[in-house]
Amino acid sequence: MSDVPGARVHIRRAPDRANYDRATVHAVLDAAVVCQVAYVLDGEPRMVPTAIMRRGDHVYLHGNRQSAMIRALQQGALAAICVTHVDGLVAARSGFHCSMNYRSAVLYGHAETVAEDDKEALLGAFVDQLIPGHGAAVRRATAQELNATTLLRIPIDEAVAKVRTGGPIDDPADADLDIWSGVIPLAVVPGAPIAGEGCTNLNVPDYIAGFGKGS
Amino acid sequence: MSDVPGARVHIRRAPDRANYDRATVHAVLDAAVVCQVAYVLDGEPRMVPTAIMRRGDHVYLHGNRQSAMIRALQQGALAAICVTHVDGLVAARSGFHCSMNYRSAVLYGHAETVAEDDKEALLGAFVDQLIPGHGAAVRRATAQELNATTLLRIPIDEAVAKVRTGGPIDDPADADLDIWSGVIPLAVVPGAPIAGEGCTNLNVPDYIAGFGKGS
Repeated sequence: MSDVPGARVHIRRAPDRANYDRATVHAVLDAAVVCQVAYVLDGEPRMVPTAIMRRGDHVYLHGNRQSAMIRALQQGALAAICVTHVDGLVAARSGFHCSMNYRSAVLYGHAETVAEDDKEALLGAFVDQLIPGHGAAVRRATAQELNATTLLRIPIDEAVAKVRTGGPIDDPADADLDIWSGVIPLAVVPGAPIAGEGCTNLNVPDYIAGFGKGS
Repeated sequence: MSDVPGARVHIRRAPDRANYDRATVHAVLDAAVVCQVAYVLDGEPRMVPTAIMRRGDHVYLHGNRQSAMIRALQQGALAAICVTHVDGLVAARSGFHCSMNYRSAVLYGHAETVAEDDKEALLGAFVDQLIPGHGAAVRRATAQELNATTLLRIPIDEAVAKVRTGGPIDDPADADLDIWSGVIPLAVVPGAPIAGEGCTNLNVPDYIAGFGKGS
């Protein structure tokens, strides 16, 4: 991944919020369980939300082998992939300067299909990306399941993260206006785990009970 | 908005989760402050996250008049717009059936530019979509601010929502496996408001203090 942005990811609006460095892009991707994937079909855009996982310098997408998105990317359509996290609502003293705190990443690349021999381990990693620890708990994938699922990977070569943090940036002329300004932080918070209807093992595993509470 | 899906939004994977009815699509859109917008530029996909607001049978996007996305849509590029909410992580007894609870909406349409006379009120509504109540508190937009901002609207004619709720749907053959299965609910939770550095009015308004606590 180059630190010099290509034309597709070169940010012209609010360029001070753009990060092309690998660590920032990876951190934004790693915080996501879903992304949006866009591609061109017959000259028109198509977009679908889907699960995402980063490992090394690739992101991984998976889907039913019949999925229109999977097939389009396998046939060589360029993938545009975006993840967005909203971290806060920024209340300025003017509407113009109201904003959001966010972390987003957009990347462009061509997918390659992961080889059959590598699929089982990487699909297990996908489960762990969703719920850390659960990948080792589930029963092994069957040949039929592996066969039904296509796993794609896209290199993180052409990517940009955009990050806004902090409070409102008001016009200096508005400094004395008697209007509350500040930030409402937003966080994604896990609730208490809910056992499935058919769940016979009611001992909540530590990795479920501790989800989202740090390592 | 027709209840008969067009080809762009016809859902073939998990069609039981697809909703083409207006109320469901509107509800998913209304819960969002950001969306992803994709369009085609020189035959390639481009995607950006941006703020979204629904009013009636349109969604509204805004941006700097020089924004590449704004200009492309003004020049007639078809917009693909997606919002995605992740409501829970679904731990099944097999990796294959692990999933997420989510609400997503995808719509396709051509943008029209909102007339100058209508911009001020709708940009105020945008502030209220972000932080209900704040639209009436901010100082009025200046002519320069209104001039710098382009407001687009896209009809919600061709749209689909996809919603998954509930617990894991395990294979019947896995019913006796001694593996915890269930859901970790996820919610976006507002934290305590943080006054901006330059905020001279330290009385937190009711609409800020009560944010996210219902009407």
